[in-house]
This record gives sequence, C-alpha cells and structure tokens, in this order.
Amino acid sequence: MKSGSINHIGIATLSLDEAEQIWSTLGFTPTNDQIVEDQGVKIRYMKGSGNTNIELLEPISDDSPIGKFIKNRGVGIQQIAINVGDINSKIVELKNHGFKMINDKAITGSEGKMVAFIHPSSCGGVLVELVENNT
Amino acid sequence: MKSGSINHIGIATLSLDEAEQIWSTLGFTPTNDQIVEDQGVKIRYMKGSGNTNIELLEPISDDSPIGKFIKNRGVGIQQIAINVGDINSKIVELKNHGFKMINDKAITGSEGKMVAFIHPSSCGGVLVELVENNT
Repeated sequence: MKSGSINHIGIATLSLDEAEQIWSTLGFTPTNDQIVEDQGVKIRYMKGSGNTNIELLEPISDDSPIGKFIKNRGVGIQQIAINVGDINSKIVELKNHGFKMINDKAITGSEGKMVAFIHPSSCGGVLVELVENNT
Repeated sequence: MKSGSINHIGIATLSLDEAEQIWSTLGFTPTNDQIVEDQGVKIRYMKGSGNTNIELLEPISDDSPIGKFIKNRGVGIQQIAINVGDINSKIVELKNHGFKMINDKAITGSEGKMVAFIHPSSCGGVLVELVENNT
C-alpha cells in the first residue's frame, strides 16, 4: 500500500437519495447502503472511476457525530479518508509527530475496515480518517 | 477521460508551509507554488500516489474568495475538484439538470487549466470545481 492515496471523501447529508442524485449526475455510481450503528450513521458509497470515492453520510439521530456536524456546520464535506498500511503503527508514528488522535487505537468502520480519526485541531481544520488498507 | 474521477481536494490554510508539514507527514509530496492573481490565491499542490491530489490554498488578501471562506468557515476543506471532458458542454448539461453554476463559462484556473465552479446551494453544500482534463 503506497502512502499518499485518498480512499474517499465523506459528505454529510440529510438525504442519501438527494445526494445520490447529485453525485450520479457528476459521474459516480451508488453501491448498497451500510449502517454503522456505533457511529449512528447510514452510508452510501458513490464509486468513482479512479481510486477515490465519495462517501455519503446520513445521520440516524441528531446526537450522532454526523448529526452534530450538520447542526454546527451544515451539510457538506465532512472528512478526507486516506489509506494506510498497519494502522496501529501509523497512529503511534503520527502521535510522535505531534498529531492529536481522536482514536488512540483503531476502531471498526464501514465495510468492516479498521479506521482511526485525527483531530482537526492538529490537521489544519481537516478531519482526517485513516483507513487500514493492505491491498 | 472517464467521468467520476476526483482531480484534487482544495484545503484553505493561512500558511502553506504549516499545511505542507501536515500533508507531507501523511504521505503527500509538495510541488512548486503557483499564484492565481484573479482568485487572489497562492497554491501548493501536494501530489498523492493515486490520481487525487491535495491542493493547499493560502489567500493573498482577506477579501479574496479563500480569504472570505476562512473568515466565515475557518481553515479546512474548501472544495472538491472533479475531472470533466469538454467543460463548456458539461456546464450546459449540468444547467439542464438544474445545477446552479458560479461560472456559466469556463475560466482559467491553476496550471492554466479551464475550470468552472458549481454553486454549493445546488450541490448539497459542497463547492465543486470542474476541471477540463482531456488526458
């Protein structure tokens, strides 16, 4: 797995169907919905032709992370997810570089992949998700 | 040019150097700076290993589009840029689909490429840049 590759861009929306219509017109193809109960979110990937996809995120409840994001910032781009190799080693490496992690150990994200978030305060205002991807 | 491919993600920053340090650690490689006078912005691309790059955007003045963005929303992700073939045909097509364009005709963007922006109000809160890319 090469470093510097973007897995997906997460977009917060109040309606997966409305957002799907937009991103379909822009050339992306929807896949099956997933629910990540722990995060209180319903997810629909819009597959691109390159290696970066669009991830549509609809909150299940107002007090979920995406629900709160929309309340504070409105709908729109919420995160960038980048591919990493061994995620727990990467977390240690980034902490040694002074990054503040939201997750000190990887958690299970969409598609059963191991993920961890870097806090936007140490990442120039950007919420960055690390996605373990050994392919 | 296949549709559904993401050219870059634009990130608004007050310091290209500080933002470079973050994205270098995350595996991206800086290229030479460019200035787009019309947009009042200094740009540094951070090349990824896939086809999607990070575009760091530092305002030259407070009343430039990026300066205003930072004043209103803070630093962070500002836009998603997608590749399109013939950009002026794409603008007509998107308007027929009900998208509201910021630019009804393409303008010259970074690297001399023809670009046009879709208004976030018709794109689920996301500022989308179309980039003409016939390769």
